[in-house]
Amino acid sequence: MTKPLSGLLAFVFATSALAGPIVHDAEYYVLEAQNGKRWAAEDDGLRARLSALREKFGTPPNIVHIMWDDTAYGDVGIPAIQKVRGLDTPHLNRMAREGILFTRMYTEVGCTPSRAACMTGRHPIRNGMYNIGMLRESHGLRAEEVTLAEVLSGAGYATAFHGKWHLGDIEESYAHLQGFDEAFFTGYNQILSLWTRQAEQANATMGLFEDLLPSDPYKLDDTFITKGWVTVLEGTKGGAARQWLDNSYATYEKIDAEAQDRTIAFIEKKAKAKQPFYVANWPMMASFMPTAKKVSQGRSLLQDGLQGNVDPFVGRVMEVLNDLGIAENTLLVCMADNGPMAHNPPPGCGFAETIFRGGKGDFLEGGVRVPAQAWWPGTIEPGQLVGDIIHEVDLFTTFASLAGATDAIPADRVIDGIDQTALLLNGDTHSRRDYVFIYAGPNLGATVKGPYKRHWITSDPIGEGSGIAAGFFFLPSDTREKSPMLVNLIHLKTPFNRMRIRHELWKKKYPDSPEKHGIPWTGIANATPEVKALASPPAVLKALPFDPLEYVEHLDELPFDPQADPDFGE
Amino acid sequence: MTKPLSGLLAFVFATSALAGPIVHDAEYYVLEAQNGKRWAAEDDGLRARLSALREKFGTPPNIVHIMWDDTAYGDVGIPAIQKVRGLDTPHLNRMAREGILFTRMYTEVGCTPSRAACMTGRHPIRNGMYNIGMLRESHGLRAEEVTLAEVLSGAGYATAFHGKWHLGDIEESYAHLQGFDEAFFTGYNQILSLWTRQAEQANATMGLFEDLLPSDPYKLDDTFITKGWVTVLEGTKGGAARQWLDNSYATYEKIDAEAQDRTIAFIEKKAKAKQPFYVANWPMMASFMPTAKKVSQGRSLLQDGLQGNVDPFVGRVMEVLNDLGIAENTLLVCMADNGPMAHNPPPGCGFAETIFRGGKGDFLEGGVRVPAQAWWPGTIEPGQLVGDIIHEVDLFTTFASLAGATDAIPADRVIDGIDQTALLLNGDTHSRRDYVFIYAGPNLGATVKGPYKRHWITSDPIGEGSGIAAGFFFLPSDTREKSPMLVNLIHLKTPFNRMRIRHELWKKKYPDSPEKHGIPWTGIANATPEVKALASPPAVLKALPFDPLEYVEHLDELPFDPQADPDFGE
Repeated sequence: MTKPLSGLLAFVFATSALAGPIVHDAEYYVLEAQNGKRWAAEDDGLRARLSALREKFGTPPNIVHIMWDDTAYGDVGIPAIQKVRGLDTPHLNRMAREGILFTRMYTEVGCTPSRAACMTGRHPIRNGMYNIGMLRESHGLRAEEVTLAEVLSGAGYATAFHGKWHLGDIEESYAHLQGFDEAFFTGYNQILSLWTRQAEQANATMGLFEDLLPSDPYKLDDTFITKGWVTVLEGTKGGAARQWLDNSYATYEKIDAEAQDRTIAFIEKKAKAKQPFYVANWPMMASFMPTAKKVSQGRSLLQDGLQGNVDPFVGRVMEVLNDLGIAENTLLVCMADNGPMAHNPPPGCGFAETIFRGGKGDFLEGGVRVPAQAWWPGTIEPGQLVGDIIHEVDLFTTFASLAGATDAIPADRVIDGIDQTALLLNGDTHSRRDYVFIYAGPNLGATVKGPYKRHWITSDPIGEGSGIAAGFFFLPSDTREKSPMLVNLIHLKTPFNRMRIRHELWKKKYPDSPEKHGIPWTGIANATPEVKALASPPAVLKALPFDPLEYVEHLDELPFDPQADPDFGE
Repeated sequence: MTKPLSGLLAFVFATSALAGPIVHDAEYYVLEAQNGKRWAAEDDGLRARLSALREKFGTPPNIVHIMWDDTAYGDVGIPAIQKVRGLDTPHLNRMAREGILFTRMYTEVGCTPSRAACMTGRHPIRNGMYNIGMLRESHGLRAEEVTLAEVLSGAGYATAFHGKWHLGDIEESYAHLQGFDEAFFTGYNQILSLWTRQAEQANATMGLFEDLLPSDPYKLDDTFITKGWVTVLEGTKGGAARQWLDNSYATYEKIDAEAQDRTIAFIEKKAKAKQPFYVANWPMMASFMPTAKKVSQGRSLLQDGLQGNVDPFVGRVMEVLNDLGIAENTLLVCMADNGPMAHNPPPGCGFAETIFRGGKGDFLEGGVRVPAQAWWPGTIEPGQLVGDIIHEVDLFTTFASLAGATDAIPADRVIDGIDQTALLLNGDTHSRRDYVFIYAGPNLGATVKGPYKRHWITSDPIGEGSGIAAGFFFLPSDTREKSPMLVNLIHLKTPFNRMRIRHELWKKKYPDSPEKHGIPWTGIANATPEVKALASPPAVLKALPFDPLEYVEHLDELPFDPQADPDFGE
């Protein structure tokens, strides 16, 4: 099934034709068979509480989702780690004290897959979003995917996206064509801060701005280096895309402030209109070429970004929600999108493993177990430390459930997300998930079940090369996954095999989609000449014996090897 | 100077003849020159507060020091790490909430050096205690060292030691001959749990109990394998030593309960007598052959030891202090002796790095930066997270200062400890130390100054072999010491060189003492025949062309290479 490029039409299509019960992953049914009766009884109580709240406020709860980059467990929300790491995030920490601090929030291994998972409630392996989009990746979120914005729009929610989208550079992936009423977004990541003249001047090793370089006497090909991209796009639902400002470093530095102002304005406007809203503000957080005064004791990109940028914004959001009188009808979720950039980080950047081994790109806990917290005064009990497993795909299903929009979730595909309303409202031990499948790129790297973890492939394909074989781990006593317990835990071999086979057999019924590729940055009203030129081959290449743009449609055929892929470990 | 073997005489000698101002390490004088005036003014306030307390209770404060093994930062006192690691220590965590949680408590790299540092206020390099004592090490704490027990005895304190001493097997090192009024102690570590018939039967790979093994048809030498040692000794100050029970596993399992009961009884008795007291209870905590029911979600040696053994005891101590009405006149310090056993741990033991890299034996932060907390209701402000550097040697000087016994600290040697009373009473930012010299064995591995760290030798001699060169690190942004900043921090080269050279020049004036070796387990009233035999060569070796025991006095001449030494990384 394909859906038309217009997000608006796609929404109508997606939410009307596909109604039916959610198709979960196989493992969920195993849990439901054993706990379903208890859960149904619990649901009665949850519904009563949510109804009372709706009675009081007149709308279902608002949802604010703030998700930043590359942060290790404990770098936010745990002051005794922050003291060591040289940062302080008083608002985020207060939020944790007044709400839930999750100790087992799992994400995907990298930015693009993580964001795709939140938006679709599906592991990115299912929709081809498992790669990390880089400059002119020519790839993005498929129109056929039904996003959280589409689901919530159907329940009358106003929806907005502000910040780092990083879900593609092809037109169908644009945020305002994926269901958001308003969107202000980047197609790529913080490397946009380096793709600038100012960065070329500062380190001159990129070669993007050739006029700043000596001429190369050996140069034969003017088409090799990419020309033309877009730093920020903006648009409203189903409408035209417009580039915001230009691709300069000055523009880059303004993104977060602009996104934050738009989010606050959106909240104020919708609160006054008494319309329930969902806003995702995913900050850029930092620049790879930081120029501002340092604010943290850690002095580094990560710490300064969290303390100086993200944290004050979270404080501002909480204050605005309080001032508007809607804090008690708003769920605020703040989290990182994946583990720290532990491999090949910029020097002095402050990214570091904390308690877990590995980081971004790794299926080790360090890659996928992130700081995460939820705040909802009056509904979420304060001061909770939650030991349950939750996965970011669950936010999709849970937000839909809170909005009364579960019926708009498509029923023709696997939704990995599980409704975790009980965990939010009843707290510790009330998760409805005890498992996670962790993909690194298109490969299933590991499976978690309760305190146990099965590595399916060697554990450190891109790191220091620990030489540890795939194996079985008991996470509480070996959080760093360094000591596979081949003897003690060999009794888990068959159970893990059974789990994986069920997971893969289920895919025969509900197959994965490959990556979606296309010409980048089409459909922009004010496109620069360089961007426009991306859609047609350079004149000088017109006479080639093959179509110079043909390759784009075949990009998904590249072999994927996480050990060789520069997107992993970057 | 040597002191006689009798601890009682030694004490009189040590504390009368050596009076004078403390000789600090060179670096301290650099700090004092810049901060001395401010510190002196601050001291007036501190003295007034301590006088008022003494007025109220009639004695200087009591001191209880509980120090266990091999625990990574955060495994105690930080619930959000404990949730991940599968343990809960409610009493220790309450203690942290009601007092200080130190985020930069440094220790020595291993058990023996760490304990020697606490007892003498000196880095073990200065007194030959830098090795980790193993079965029949034939080595121990020199009589010439002036221990904390000796210093505090001179100020009228009752003193007791209960638990894991691990400061030697030679007579002069026995705890009751090193100044304690009463002592119940092990000369070695938890490996005593393996040196038992029960362990030989369970894994049969040690070869200590040869009657449990098949006879070896190739065996030529009956003297190679050590026979004769002592699991627990007891004694009172200057008196005879007696072995407590035998060397069986059943005895091992009773050590902590007995030590805990003796500590509680000691506290009750001294409180009733209104005598100020100092008691060190350093638990064995765990067994390398655990047989009891598991109590922690982590199921492992470390977690079960902390949750099931140490934590309830800490709770019991706090309760007893409260019940006796002396909690407000008692300083309780609880901490680990060094980082986790990250190298070659027993399988499934639960030792793991948390936020820092490395563990026991390493000069990396993971080896020497430990969980530590201080509790003193009414005097220490509750809920403090202290970011200052403090080192376990400072406990020596600080405890002496609180007891009014600073004059008893010997003035003929370097005391690395600094009086940290201001840090305890005034909290965060009131440390009088911004540096640490970290030795691994006899080698200076690294130097810390504020947030910076200089590795003098490669950082991972025994670990996974990261291939990282010696270099400069900025700890907040690189807690795991993985990214030496040779360019950014090269401006620190001369300052660190200057610091090290001053440290070493000072040693020319106050030289280090070599290791002290001797025949183990002499002077025991109820010695077994096997133990008695240690002091004389086996009859069969009487006719050798050399003295079969001569080697003992030359043990300190062995070359030390941390890469080859099995004591490091064990």
